[in-house]
Amino acid sequence: MGRESVFLPTTASTTVNPVAAPPTSLAPGFRFHPTDEELVIYYLKRKVSGKPFRFDAISEVDIYRSEPGDLADKSRLKTRDQEWYFFSALDKKYGNGGRMNRATGKGYWKATGNDRQVKHEERVVGLKKTLVFHSGRAPDGKRTNWVMHEYRLTEKEMERIGTGSSQPQVRF
Amino acid sequence: MGRESVFLPTTASTTVNPVAAPPTSLAPGFRFHPTDEELVIYYLKRKVSGKPFRFDAISEVDIYRSEPGDLADKSRLKTRDQEWYFFSALDKKYGNGGRMNRATGKGYWKATGNDRQVKHEERVVGLKKTLVFHSGRAPDGKRTNWVMHEYRLTEKEMERIGTGSSQPQVRF
Repeated sequence: MGRESVFLPTTASTTVNPVAAPPTSLAPGFRFHPTDEELVIYYLKRKVSGKPFRFDAISEVDIYRSEPGDLADKSRLKTRDQEWYFFSALDKKYGNGGRMNRATGKGYWKATGNDRQVKHEERVVGLKKTLVFHSGRAPDGKRTNWVMHEYRLTEKEMERIGTGSSQPQVRF
Repeated sequence: MGRESVFLPTTASTTVNPVAAPPTSLAPGFRFHPTDEELVIYYLKRKVSGKPFRFDAISEVDIYRSEPGDLADKSRLKTRDQEWYFFSALDKKYGNGGRMNRATGKGYWKATGNDRQVKHEERVVGLKKTLVFHSGRAPDGKRTNWVMHEYRLTEKEMERIGTGSSQPQVRF
């Protein structure tokens, strides 16, 4: 089995479109290969701000209510890349981004390494955390090849948007 | 200066849209990164066959009437990638794909290395030639960093399309 990845730009927004858009397959040759900067400064920031996207590329899911193998079907974009992108609200108790395990029904996502900074025009706008899925229950879970990259906006960037205190559902 | 590339899927088709489509910039995160196989079996083959594209990603130009630095402006897709894709008719005298120089006003494209095979479902469907732009006149031209990859259908693939003899303007 190859190394598979789930890319997860996190957001605390809980808005859900009343009608889910149908999945889209891109024309041959086209790929959705966003940079970390694009994910944070365009997709995540616009999502949290409630601004529209030119193309609705990323669906909203509750990551921890799905097992990794079930996520591909929930992707807005149908691609042959073994990567998928989702928005997912973070529960408050996970908000500190610490070492806490994030459990699904059959396993848990465990952070690995340190959070990395995502920059835009030389300022830090987001943080990227990498997590590996373990099947079973901590601390006896078995490491798998599923990898998730979670992006979140920095608090400072949240303040720039102005959602820090006015939208209490946004929790970081 | 970085290594810049011009990607050129060749075709002998001379059809030109009566109204040129305006340039398109992709939404953030989206890239046009076709594989060799996609370029040959989808874009080039459909072009030669006269079949429509889901998205009109590649404009037609006469490559040898442009200097490399002028080509970016003629690309259908406006991207930050330093790569552009074009269809261009091959003049008959260049059709054998040999060592001949292909002149522009201020220089010429010179083939480098051997043609490589492009496969689809284990059969060879196309050939890929790499050329480097030299400024000045052969044999005294000065090598530049401009690189072009030229794709052409194999004669066998042309026969499969059925354009081999019925469309004499198709010359390979």
